[in-house]
Amino acid sequence: MALGEFQLIERFFRQPALQGAGDVSRIALGIGDDAAMLAPTDYKQLVISTDSLVEGVHFPADHQPADVGYRALAVAVSDLAAMGAMPVGFTLALTLPQADEAWLAGFAEGLASAAGDHRIALIGGDTTRGPLNINVTVFGEVEARRVVRRSDAKPGDLLCVGGSLGDAGAALALLQGQPAPAALDPAARDYLLQRYWRPQAQCELGLELAGVASAAIDLSDGLLADAAQLARASGVALHLRSADLPCSAALASWPEAQRRQWMLGAGDDYRLLFCLPPASERCLKVWASQGFEVSVIGEVQAGDGVWLDQQRIEQPNGYQHFTESRHD
Amino acid sequence: MALGEFQLIERFFRQPALQGAGDVSRIALGIGDDAAMLAPTDYKQLVISTDSLVEGVHFPADHQPADVGYRALAVAVSDLAAMGAMPVGFTLALTLPQADEAWLAGFAEGLASAAGDHRIALIGGDTTRGPLNINVTVFGEVEARRVVRRSDAKPGDLLCVGGSLGDAGAALALLQGQPAPAALDPAARDYLLQRYWRPQAQCELGLELAGVASAAIDLSDGLLADAAQLARASGVALHLRSADLPCSAALASWPEAQRRQWMLGAGDDYRLLFCLPPASERCLKVWASQGFEVSVIGEVQAGDGVWLDQQRIEQPNGYQHFTESRHD
Repeated sequence: MALGEFQLIERFFRQPALQGAGDVSRIALGIGDDAAMLAPTDYKQLVISTDSLVEGVHFPADHQPADVGYRALAVAVSDLAAMGAMPVGFTLALTLPQADEAWLAGFAEGLASAAGDHRIALIGGDTTRGPLNINVTVFGEVEARRVVRRSDAKPGDLLCVGGSLGDAGAALALLQGQPAPAALDPAARDYLLQRYWRPQAQCELGLELAGVASAAIDLSDGLLADAAQLARASGVALHLRSADLPCSAALASWPEAQRRQWMLGAGDDYRLLFCLPPASERCLKVWASQGFEVSVIGEVQAGDGVWLDQQRIEQPNGYQHFTESRHD
Repeated sequence: MALGEFQLIERFFRQPALQGAGDVSRIALGIGDDAAMLAPTDYKQLVISTDSLVEGVHFPADHQPADVGYRALAVAVSDLAAMGAMPVGFTLALTLPQADEAWLAGFAEGLASAAGDHRIALIGGDTTRGPLNINVTVFGEVEARRVVRRSDAKPGDLLCVGGSLGDAGAALALLQGQPAPAALDPAARDYLLQRYWRPQAQCELGLELAGVASAAIDLSDGLLADAAQLARASGVALHLRSADLPCSAALASWPEAQRRQWMLGAGDDYRLLFCLPPASERCLKVWASQGFEVSVIGEVQAGDGVWLDQQRIEQPNGYQHFTESRHD
């Protein structure tokens, strides 16, 4: 007998690993009524972001459901990290062609794993039938005076990124069947695929940036494209130095030109790109001692646009829906 | 040239009718950053509900985009009304096969019309390519001590409904090509179709219910099915009287048996079903004088299940995704 909507929710989504992840003290009402309720904290703002993932656009049709569950939540949480917000809860609106129990079990397991890693609880949702579409809306909290927007970068600021660049671009090439370089060992290959399928939203770094960074954005469309958005929102020019772009050991197996293309242009990295006021050396030292990998990759100047090694980048557009295709 | 994602948002969704609807004082940050922000009000809880609409499941493929835009927002807001919450803002995650400008212009117009009618502002969203899927997540506010849940109905309470029942069921039959009764004049037909395509979430009634009603649910799956959910959540029996079910003049054109079937079993009405403490006659009189149409249709008793004219209804299940089809 086919599983009905209510049974499906009961069986796969009402589990402590999903509903009990993180600090649940803010959750006044979870799954099961007409709506969920959050109790706000004094002096904090509620930060909200929504993302839909579509098969063949955001992930290949040939996928592990647990990976898709993990990725759907992690990429949404990354937007909270970019605002300096602490994750609190999320809703899931899941559209599925049929109630495939094996797929659902895997998906819920990956989702629960991401919920645990990012300390965020499932508070409500909607389940419906149709072509596969996964919508996650995330909620976080930040003090109003500490929120990090895209629009407040100032000339003289340092331009920084958390962690390595381009790994997800290499992973996607592997998933699409491009040959790996001979130097890429199995552990390095696995590292890259994990970077694509199980990105870690940089929430802890984001909390450090709150009240400190002048601007931040998460890298979903590619370094140059997202840098262009930050530059536009802040009304400044971003000057990048290619020699300072951080590259993982795994990515270093590829020739320079290929690696550079992914580091500058590939999406899906979900690293934070951010700006720090000029005298931030002490911050950078403290973060390094705490284990945060932060690279200074350039600086903010008066002007506009994105510049690489003194050259202006024309049309630094990343992936845009409706004008390009990615996974079809 | 195809419209890109950013241009599409700029052109259709950045408009005062969408971003400026209702009381925008709570909106600390709207469209354009990594996330939106709401500033909570002291003593109030944030109420959250998410709904996805899929073509062929939630609305016929042969539709007016403005109607779909209106309906997508109104049905989501209806969940806020059922909690006694005041609408504040919503996010829209829109998945579209292509950037069809005529469809988008119509959709945005209908969405703006619903935003104005329900006083709720667009605060953020996501646009992606794929099979048509419209996800709306709504945010409202209510004082913690006044929130209306499904689970607090008590034996002795009056069972009430706001407005008429079954209109959307009749409208759907007309949309599916069933012949109309001869007595149905064009104005009545139009009224029914509007009830289906442009439901009015009963927010004003919901605000009256806050702190007064013991329980409420909005009617999306059908009276008996939603009553069964309320009965289960509250651990009570709901006893309905068929003679007291409110019927619109338009619906009265159909024979008794057909009309009764829609009033009891058809979904999509988006009326509030709620329970009032025994001595609520004064409330009912005040509401009547204010123009609210409220009918007492039964009462809450000890026990379980849903009863109609003393007969227990077995399996009062409404529409459930994955086990039934509606519009295909």
